[in-house]
Amino acid sequence: MAKVQVVFHIDEMEKWGLLLNNVQNLIHGLAGTDSRIEVVANSKAVEFYRAAANTNGTGLALKLAEAGVDFAACGNALRGLKIEPEELLPFIRTVPSGVLELVKRQQAGYAYLKP
Amino acid sequence: MAKVQVVFHIDEMEKWGLLLNNVQNLIHGLAGTDSRIEVVANSKAVEFYRAAANTNGTGLALKLAEAGVDFAACGNALRGLKIEPEELLPFIRTVPSGVLELVKRQQAGYAYLKP
Amino acid sequence: MAKVQVVFHIDEMEKWGLLLNNVQNLIHGLAGTDSRIEVVANSKAVEFYRAAANTNGTGLALKLAEAGVDFAACGNALRGLKIEPEELLPFIRTVPSGVLELVKRQQAGYAYLKP
Repeated sequence: MAKVQVVFHIDEMEKWGLLLNNVQNLIHGLAGTDSRIEVVANSKAVEFYRAAANTNGTGLALKLAEAGVDFAACGNALRGLKIEPEELLPFIRTVPSGVLELVKRQQAGYAYLKP
Repeated sequence: MAKVQVVFHIDEMEKWGLLLNNVQNLIHGLAGTDSRIEVVANSKAVEFYRAAANTNGTGLALKLAEAGVDFAACGNALRGLKIEPEELLPFIRTVPSGVLELVKRQQAGYAYLKP
Repeated sequence: MAKVQVVFHIDEMEKWGLLLNNVQNLIHGLAGTDSRIEVVANSKAVEFYRAAANTNGTGLALKLAEAGVDFAACGNALRGLKIEPEELLPFIRTVPSGVLELVKRQQAGYAYLKP
């Protein structure tokens, strides 16, 4: 199989459990394949990235980040919710615009998934 | 960056606020880039396009349309909801099938976003 | 129009009515065009595929399958919900991973739709 590139989109807090499960299944299904997996959170879903959110699932997110998954936060959403970069979990990357990130990735050949 | 082409998909009334905010952020992030942004509404989301709906957000939609965003309504959905073309806001374009429009755009290289 | 290839994604039971309606409209809009339409269900949406579910809509799903639509079930989701392959409607194809199937299809040029 050709190199696999996937970008996941999430904008609702309630979808994190489903999304992380999807990512985990994808990694398992890809075992050994050259791949790039990115998760882009915008709107209220960025709240999950706050270290203080103590949300179920941040442990799994960290494990997936250590397995190479790239977690990105929308800078517009962070600003709107008054979340400071230093409040985020340490493995989160901030991008200026979540939607623009999603568009750029698709232009670069990434598949798009919205759980 | 290469020419940016994006099609947004909406089929639920409750998602209009999020979608219009996403479009606005994308336009801001693209400032000056050659781009095409289209919004395709099908199912119950076409109700937003009725001039008489008086929905919050139609003012922002008009502003975005003036900035070049192309708003399309699914003809199947309009028929199903018995909405006549003349009831629509003046800047709405009707397409025969919303899903077919979304497919054609992706085939033409548009990125797909479902807020 | 070029050959049309589309993959629909569903992960919530409540979306089946909307999805099947979208597929039906797409088939109608494509009348006579060379096309491939696939529906990939993962997470809780695979429950719809159980013959014993007696869900409204399985009649329409059968009709669409007879018209050439390929219905796939995520094997991970079936295992998680303890649904055995022999419990499924006879026209369902099981794939190891729903998300991987969705990625592979997009890599093969399929448009992605999430109703």
